Amino acid sequence: MPLSSPDLSEVKAIVFDVFGTVVDWRGSIIRELEAVGARLGITRDWGSLADRWRDGYYQGTKDVLAGKRDWATADVMHLERLELLKTEFDLSALGQSEIEELNRAWHRLTPWSDSVAGLTRLKQKFIIGTLSNGNNGLLVHMAKNAGLPWDVIMGGENFASYKPSPKVYLGAVELLGYQPHEVMVAAAHLTDLGNAHQNGLRTAFIPRPLEFGGSDSTSEMVAELAHDAGDHIDLIATDFLDLANQLEA
Amino acid sequence: MPLSSPDLSEVKAIVFDVFGTVVDWRGSIIRELEAVGARLGITRDWGSLADRWRDGYYQGTKDVLAGKRDWATADVMHLERLELLKTEFDLSALGQSEIEELNRAWHRLTPWSDSVAGLTRLKQKFIIGTLSNGNNGLLVHMAKNAGLPWDVIMGGENFASYKPSPKVYLGAVELLGYQPHEVMVAAAHLTDLGNAHQNGLRTAFIPRPLEFGGSDSTSEMVAELAHDAGDHIDLIATDFLDLANQLEA
Repeated sequence: MPLSSPDLSEVKAIVFDVFGTVVDWRGSIIRELEAVGARLGITRDWGSLADRWRDGYYQGTKDVLAGKRDWATADVMHLERLELLKTEFDLSALGQSEIEELNRAWHRLTPWSDSVAGLTRLKQKFIIGTLSNGNNGLLVHMAKNAGLPWDVIMGGENFASYKPSPKVYLGAVELLGYQPHEVMVAAAHLTDLGNAHQNGLRTAFIPRPLEFGGSDSTSEMVAELAHDAGDHIDLIATDFLDLANQLEA
Repeated sequence: MPLSSPDLSEVKAIVFDVFGTVVDWRGSIIRELEAVGARLGITRDWGSLADRWRDGYYQGTKDVLAGKRDWATADVMHLERLELLKTEFDLSALGQSEIEELNRAWHRLTPWSDSVAGLTRLKQKFIIGTLSNGNNGLLVHMAKNAGLPWDVIMGGENFASYKPSPKVYLGAVELLGYQPHEVMVAAAHLTDLGNAHQNGLRTAFIPRPLEFGGSDSTSEMVAELAHDAGDHIDLIATDFLDLANQLEA
């Protein structure tokens, strides 16, 4: 449903947050870990490991932005954290090449069931791209593996920064040759959208209630959010097909 | 035909020069100019205008690299030169909005007849991307207009530089997360390939004898080049379909 009712008719490109918004990172990582566990004949709390793994990357982006560490890609930060988790979760049976192969699980994340079909429709009317803190190599591999039909791959790496830095939002706008109000950010995370809005971009909220393993129904969540949403959300959609419907793509 | 016979089995990505290699910029620009001429009821030497237009952009990239001017995109340099050519070719009937629309002819260039089919095959086996001095917005619009199925759009703009700067070749390699020998540059221009080779990338030469309006047959040209080619060319293909054949894609 449209919320703050800004003029969305000038939107020419939609750029998507990826982890959580386009792909089910947590479910995918847990499945990869379960496969490793089955092979090694071990069981662990794979959900906790997935959360800890994700957290390493997330904290890493914060540390880069705070100047506490030099630039590092998602691939590098994923590997650093995985090496810690190998000890923490007693995965000493994994050799170095297996650790590196497991790290590429982030290149193979599974899209939500509506993602490919929705993006394929949106691509007919809009330029569709990524706007992720994942590195370009990761995003390209993910797209090829999952069939995500991006027109353009962009991420923090292009601007040597990370969301929520304005460099990333405005860098993407500039790279596309548009004005901020001609670019919409689609994301499952309200903070991402708040920052996009502050930089003058349009925003679409696509709740993904199962991202962190929860069980809320999207419809309840949307009803609640539609009630409480601030003016930094221009549009709420239940999934990418609904987004395509609302944008008449 | 393979020439210097390096190991090409590790090539994972192919990045393409665009103007001249993927699209027929000169023929496309002449057709756009002819349409403008027909509407205005005027005739000019459109081939000369196209060459002069292209030259403005080409010289602009040289000036940026030499530090003689600040960074400017292909779009900006195309527009600057077009405004000069408006006087030079007596096109005063064109208003400012028509000039700006005509400038976007570079976003609508027509691919060579083998380009889309060849890229579609190559995409099954390799990451395929642009490596152009055109700006990203131009390249994205061209891809959507012409159906070029790029996995990733890259150009000098990503690295605030222009080919033949090593920043562009090595920047693309880094952005993809590969080593130089894992990336092949495909181009119709030997200087581009020479520079790619100097930076450690693999190279494929695809002669486009009609680029500048000539009439040499590709087969003769290939025979001659195969004879004279230096060791900076790893492979010569008659077109993108032949490239796909040779790389077993």
